[in-house]
Amino acid sequence: MLPFARVSIIGLGLIGSSVARAVKANMPEVRITGFDADPEVRDRAHDLGFCDDVADTAGTAVIDAGLVILCVPVGAMGLVAEQMAADLPADAIVSDVGSCKQSVAEALAAALPEATIIPAHPVAGTEKSGPDAGFATLFKGRWCILTPPTNAPEAAVAALSTFWQRLGADVEIMDARHHDLVLAITSHLPHLIAYTIVGTADDLGEVTQSEVIKYSAGGFRDFTRIAASDPVMWRDVFLNNKEAVLEMLQRFSEDLTALQRAIRYGKGDDLEALFARTRDIRRSIVEQGQDDDAPDFGRKH
Amino acid sequence: MLPFARVSIIGLGLIGSSVARAVKANMPEVRITGFDADPEVRDRAHDLGFCDDVADTAGTAVIDAGLVILCVPVGAMGLVAEQMAADLPADAIVSDVGSCKQSVAEALAAALPEATIIPAHPVAGTEKSGPDAGFATLFKGRWCILTPPTNAPEAAVAALSTFWQRLGADVEIMDARHHDLVLAITSHLPHLIAYTIVGTADDLGEVTQSEVIKYSAGGFRDFTRIAASDPVMWRDVFLNNKEAVLEMLQRFSEDLTALQRAIRYGKGDDLEALFARTRDIRRSIVEQGQDDDAPDFGRKH
Repeated sequence: MLPFARVSIIGLGLIGSSVARAVKANMPEVRITGFDADPEVRDRAHDLGFCDDVADTAGTAVIDAGLVILCVPVGAMGLVAEQMAADLPADAIVSDVGSCKQSVAEALAAALPEATIIPAHPVAGTEKSGPDAGFATLFKGRWCILTPPTNAPEAAVAALSTFWQRLGADVEIMDARHHDLVLAITSHLPHLIAYTIVGTADDLGEVTQSEVIKYSAGGFRDFTRIAASDPVMWRDVFLNNKEAVLEMLQRFSEDLTALQRAIRYGKGDDLEALFARTRDIRRSIVEQGQDDDAPDFGRKH
Repeated sequence: MLPFARVSIIGLGLIGSSVARAVKANMPEVRITGFDADPEVRDRAHDLGFCDDVADTAGTAVIDAGLVILCVPVGAMGLVAEQMAADLPADAIVSDVGSCKQSVAEALAAALPEATIIPAHPVAGTEKSGPDAGFATLFKGRWCILTPPTNAPEAAVAALSTFWQRLGADVEIMDARHHDLVLAITSHLPHLIAYTIVGTADDLGEVTQSEVIKYSAGGFRDFTRIAASDPVMWRDVFLNNKEAVLEMLQRFSEDLTALQRAIRYGKGDDLEALFARTRDIRRSIVEQGQDDDAPDFGRKH
């Protein structure tokens, strides 16, 4: 039983093209129509062949869709939804893959007041962007969080859950506000910090950029990996999950100030106690399959 | 031509045991004597067989050494040097692998006023600890920074350089103070930040630890990897490179405050400009072989 016969994917970058490839790999009978606002991306998607059809407008892409998934930066969701509003079938489910859920829910509801909207967020990705970067196993063993509004039809939520499970994901249902808080600490703040420290290093006068690059194996290189993620996508995340990000940032800053003070006054016991505690969280992440235990610092031997 | 016929390794954890394994792999004729203050580690080293001899005291470990390498936390260097002082051959070179170089140089000079001391720092590692964690290729293609005092004999510097090159490392000579500044930004600050954010996440009331772990694939898991590094080693690094770490931390905090302000006031252009700039540094790190280009976020597919 296929949850949808025809899926439209709007936005064919890393995530959109991975969804398309994962559908092809796991539900080959499903027809996929893709669209991207960038004509070069459309051409590339056509050449790569992960869609059955590549449409020239968002409207034509959704004409006979059972499920429409918006895979664009969260700041662009409302505009894209408006562009396809006139052509959207009345029984289609509209979903997305954005990293903030309250703002996306509001934008989609405003643009598509009659539609069945079930926002979603597959917690998976890499630091690469574009249609060449996607791959069919990106969602395997990862969590996909659905944040259906309270009045969402149960059958629609069930169908979307089945869809993501067929792509290899585990599905969790969550309140949109809580999602935004959880992701602020597990994803948004780590990215913000990685971007910041790479910028700080770039601005130093006494240490040359060439030195920063040469000796990056001491830890810095892992931050540069995260800080290579798509700039527009991340700009939109911070602007659209402002409240939760600022809250987490404030807590982080307080904790950093406490550590700064421990270093200044030579409080070794305080430092060691924190450093020992953080090991336990790492152990749980490895045990639950959310990362590899290989000693790697991001590097293959 | 072997740079040294007999090498003593004091401290048999990740780095010490990797040095031993790398010597065995690349210079099998060199005799290795190992010592560790922990009797369990000595027993394990004996079983693993990466040393020719495992001594019961630091003194007996160095009796006929041409090169002694201290692979202990930087706060323990002075004590270990005192313990072996009486048995150290007059012509032996004493070196180390610590992540701070000014404090180690001072501690070793105080404990061994007559010895030829050439501090060194191989910029390589993983988040694992202990004698089982080491491997022979850890230093391959990584930089080893030597910080010889101005009066160090040229021949001794040359011999130590050859030793590290034979283990696969590229050698750089640097002033100890400059080393400490470079490593503060490329290694010490990244570790401090990673430890902090993992601690912040652990303290949250609204988001459970189980949620932090489940959704860690969004970026957080890479921080937990770094924050799983040895607590005592890192405590000592921060206490012994206090000045440079506090300086870099101050700059980082200012930059983070600027980003916080950009988010609060919705300055998307400022965010995007920084996020685009940090991509270039990543590109250089990959080009220079200091990290793998595979899109991974620390995870194997």
